[in-house]
Amino acid sequence: MKIGFIGLGIMGSRMAANLQKAGHELVVFNRTPDKAEALVKAGAVLAPSPEEVGRQCRLVFTMLSTPEAVQEVALGQQGFLKELPGHSLWVDCSTVNPSFSRQMAKAALKMGHRFLDAPVSGSLAPAENGQLVFLIGGEENDITEIRPLLDAMGKAVLHIGGHGQGASMKMVNNMLFGQIMVAFAEALKLGTYLGMTEETLCQTLLNGPGGAPFLKGKENKLLSRDFSPEFPLEWMHKDLHLAGVTAYEQEIALPFLHAAKELFAQAKQAGLAGEDFSAVYQFINPK
Amino acid sequence: MKIGFIGLGIMGSRMAANLQKAGHELVVFNRTPDKAEALVKAGAVLAPSPEEVGRQCRLVFTMLSTPEAVQEVALGQQGFLKELPGHSLWVDCSTVNPSFSRQMAKAALKMGHRFLDAPVSGSLAPAENGQLVFLIGGEENDITEIRPLLDAMGKAVLHIGGHGQGASMKMVNNMLFGQIMVAFAEALKLGTYLGMTEETLCQTLLNGPGGAPFLKGKENKLLSRDFSPEFPLEWMHKDLHLAGVTAYEQEIALPFLHAAKELFAQAKQAGLAGEDFSAVYQFINPK
Amino acid sequence: MKIGFIGLGIMGSRMAANLQKAGHELVVFNRTPDKAEALVKAGAVLAPSPEEVGRQCRLVFTMLSTPEAVQEVALGQQGFLKELPGHSLWVDCSTVNPSFSRQMAKAALKMGHRFLDAPVSGSLAPAENGQLVFLIGGEENDITEIRPLLDAMGKAVLHIGGHGQGASMKMVNNMLFGQIMVAFAEALKLGTYLGMTEETLCQTLLNGPGGAPFLKGKENKLLSRDFSPEFPLEWMHKDLHLAGVTAYEQEIALPFLHAAKELFAQAKQAGLAGEDFSAVYQFINPK
Amino acid sequence: MKIGFIGLGIMGSRMAANLQKAGHELVVFNRTPDKAEALVKAGAVLAPSPEEVGRQCRLVFTMLSTPEAVQEVALGQQGFLKELPGHSLWVDCSTVNPSFSRQMAKAALKMGHRFLDAPVSGSLAPAENGQLVFLIGGEENDITEIRPLLDAMGKAVLHIGGHGQGASMKMVNNMLFGQIMVAFAEALKLGTYLGMTEETLCQTLLNGPGGAPFLKGKENKLLSRDFSPEFPLEWMHKDLHLAGVTAYEQEIALPFLHAAKELFAQAKQAGLAGEDFSAVYQFINPK
Repeated sequence: MKIGFIGLGIMGSRMAANLQKAGHELVVFNRTPDKAEALVKAGAVLAPSPEEVGRQCRLVFTMLSTPEAVQEVALGQQGFLKELPGHSLWVDCSTVNPSFSRQMAKAALKMGHRFLDAPVSGSLAPAENGQLVFLIGGEENDITEIRPLLDAMGKAVLHIGGHGQGASMKMVNNMLFGQIMVAFAEALKLGTYLGMTEETLCQTLLNGPGGAPFLKGKENKLLSRDFSPEFPLEWMHKDLHLAGVTAYEQEIALPFLHAAKELFAQAKQAGLAGEDFSAVYQFINPK
Repeated sequence: MKIGFIGLGIMGSRMAANLQKAGHELVVFNRTPDKAEALVKAGAVLAPSPEEVGRQCRLVFTMLSTPEAVQEVALGQQGFLKELPGHSLWVDCSTVNPSFSRQMAKAALKMGHRFLDAPVSGSLAPAENGQLVFLIGGEENDITEIRPLLDAMGKAVLHIGGHGQGASMKMVNNMLFGQIMVAFAEALKLGTYLGMTEETLCQTLLNGPGGAPFLKGKENKLLSRDFSPEFPLEWMHKDLHLAGVTAYEQEIALPFLHAAKELFAQAKQAGLAGEDFSAVYQFINPK
Repeated sequence: MKIGFIGLGIMGSRMAANLQKAGHELVVFNRTPDKAEALVKAGAVLAPSPEEVGRQCRLVFTMLSTPEAVQEVALGQQGFLKELPGHSLWVDCSTVNPSFSRQMAKAALKMGHRFLDAPVSGSLAPAENGQLVFLIGGEENDITEIRPLLDAMGKAVLHIGGHGQGASMKMVNNMLFGQIMVAFAEALKLGTYLGMTEETLCQTLLNGPGGAPFLKGKENKLLSRDFSPEFPLEWMHKDLHLAGVTAYEQEIALPFLHAAKELFAQAKQAGLAGEDFSAVYQFINPK
Repeated sequence: MKIGFIGLGIMGSRMAANLQKAGHELVVFNRTPDKAEALVKAGAVLAPSPEEVGRQCRLVFTMLSTPEAVQEVALGQQGFLKELPGHSLWVDCSTVNPSFSRQMAKAALKMGHRFLDAPVSGSLAPAENGQLVFLIGGEENDITEIRPLLDAMGKAVLHIGGHGQGASMKMVNNMLFGQIMVAFAEALKLGTYLGMTEETLCQTLLNGPGGAPFLKGKENKLLSRDFSPEFPLEWMHKDLHLAGVTAYEQEIALPFLHAAKELFAQAKQAGLAGEDFSAVYQFINPK
């Protein structure tokens, strides 16, 4: 049984490689096909369209950067969903908004298929090392069915709730990261203006009670000012934007989220879109 | 040799008690003297004024809630500083702004004394258990001299730099806490509106890469909505205000800090000033 | 020739009445038909669906509260657009985002029709008195064709540019209003805390250089705290939300807009959605 | 009777010149004495210190840029207040915070003098043309006494209330300006990204209901991007800072004010401190 994998960016390429290493045959698709090269060399079939993935598989993973991209590969003119045999399983690992995820679940179910929203916590390194954490919304049975595949890509599988709940948890997760990143950037800024070095500040703050674990992973980037992307700033901006849209749908206020979002927007306008999201520090405290 | 201790609030009373337990004789002062009762029972002398503390000691600790209060007990009409014998040591553990701390250092040195700004990281429980972390600005020699006393009250002593650098590190530290607290509150809010329970959210987020250690200590308060104060919201508001004033002095922008500050201000206006600062969640997501 | 008019809320009902007074025969539709009563009494035909409006007219005005509502009446299953005879003219007076407006223009043109985005500046009173200002995007010829109708409803017609430019100007217009309203609310708040009366403050500020004309129209509401809606707060919140989404589409930062939006969101959560948007003052400075 | 005038910056130099034109003899002081040249040529006496102004006058105007500067010239070692003959009148036209202004009133009264806080609405051009508006806190009698002098410098005198109320009204006034300026800058920005010209936007918005009168005076600066200062950006930043400090003193939240303040802070960090405060547009929408 071949497994479909659509979306071979920073995350998807590494996740697919881990499936391959675990002995699974893949049919892959990516808008820019050269990203598939390494996988193809190792035996994957490169499909010319999402449709073709649908024709060859009963299980498809997607890992894309925006709701629009997911919609296109699944339901567009060349979408894979309409080609899948009955009762297939679509696992969307993309980070999208919960209402969109529920919409995709509905579309899949209406066509007789099954759906899991299974976004991941963790960026480049955990993707490479099979150390991702899956946050999943959907049926327990479906998770059990693909558990070995998830284990090949990650270290933990959290079943959060029904359709859309994986996306929901991912959304609040990233919203927390984005805000903490900005908070730390401003703390570093004030600290340096008060005469402390970035080294002293990182050492003290990151080992203190405010040292969120993911921040420690950013220490080198902050100190070296080399912001090569693990999780690009423009995607963090997108995630905060989607959280803001979701807040509007839920009719609630989240002023702090929006303040963080706009600092990422300013950083993006300053040319940092493709850098790691920790590069918001470069905007906040330029050097 | 008696040790002076001025300011017996949530923190000071517990720090003084730990000095006493370690066998030191104390001369204490508090604006409302009933707070000194337990210490006096255990042998401390209750001074009728800061002045009197100055007359009886060559080493004075202060632990007060605002720069204004520090100024009053040190330099006011009944201030202790003018009464100290030459070359005494004043250790200010209060959380104040760096420019004020440097001003106090200057005043002390001008009168022939020595000064350490030694604010602490940690609130009620670490104060009680002698597990505070001291963030110190000043001379290494002076720290060495009082090291056994600091060890009686804390688990670590970090010498950050010259006068004012302890206050500086404390400021960025609290600024980080305050912002992360608001970020977590908004994440919880969105999560509950998306249908997840506060329990699931806390469990997932606090054990994930965004789980700053101090947040775990707030989990019970958030879940029980019992916000009895460890570190009162109005003091966090004060600290963020002082950070804002310091940013102005340094001629830098810190928009995210100000957004957090104003959410604490709204919470304060909503009647939560005396609750723990995690009660900002009660304002953001009322129940 | 009958004129179609869809959407008979606060604004639409008054605009349609002015067309009627000017001697035009109307075919009207509203989701809740009782809003059409007065117009029907005065001779209008009440259509049972948007479709039916399409069948009877070659010129249709729409005045609805959200892009979703516009989409539904124009392109939904019972939408009017598919029923119109060739080369008909659709004039959308709703306040929607420019990208949506251009999408509607495209849909109309594809079906062989013509389109104007013609949102209005002015709320209840100007709508009633035929004193609206039309901000129009589209072809000059089409504007000329319906100029007498526009003159029956408004006092000025500004041709801003091509399709979507009317919506664009309306968006920045409302964004300016929303922000100024919040600014004035905070100025009043600080002023009252500093001991001045709301009367003195309004008199001084509104007649000074910061007195934006529309604010004067809100003075009575602010002083009486009677916020019966001219332009409901939830619509202002929607407009600021759409401006935020548009900023995201344009990849630009607008932090101040978002700060205002979130204050309206807080006011909405506090139960003020249906009040006039000036009721943001009631949230900011409750009495 | 000679009149003292201390502080000859953008505003003070022009106000003093208008007093001179009206036939009054002046004793002036400025930290950088060359600013006094024109006045001296026209007959003013240049005092070597504020003290000397105090010795020669019974009525002193001050027009300075910060509370610290006012404190220094009035109460510093060379301050004028201690030199004034009994029952003299000090009129402080500086824009300072109300609590500071009340402190100055108290200091003056304690020394047997009288005090008016009399900040002005209007910047360079109105100062030059004698078209300022005085916002005054203090005793009616004292205002009456100097009414002809105020009329020489301004077109209107508003008696707001007791000591500090002039400063209070000025504070809310400038807070309104600062916020509206940022709001307009963001509206212009979104408008230009949506394809409209700055000319069309200014024409439409400034003549519409959101067109605050002072904005029209900024139109040329915005269109030409020549931000030569009428009211420097750093002073607006200072005024918003003082409003923020006052909000803290009053224990109230003003989140929108702080959002505006931080945008001015960012603009200041970007090198625009000395430009007109409308240059916040240059930061928000660079060209």
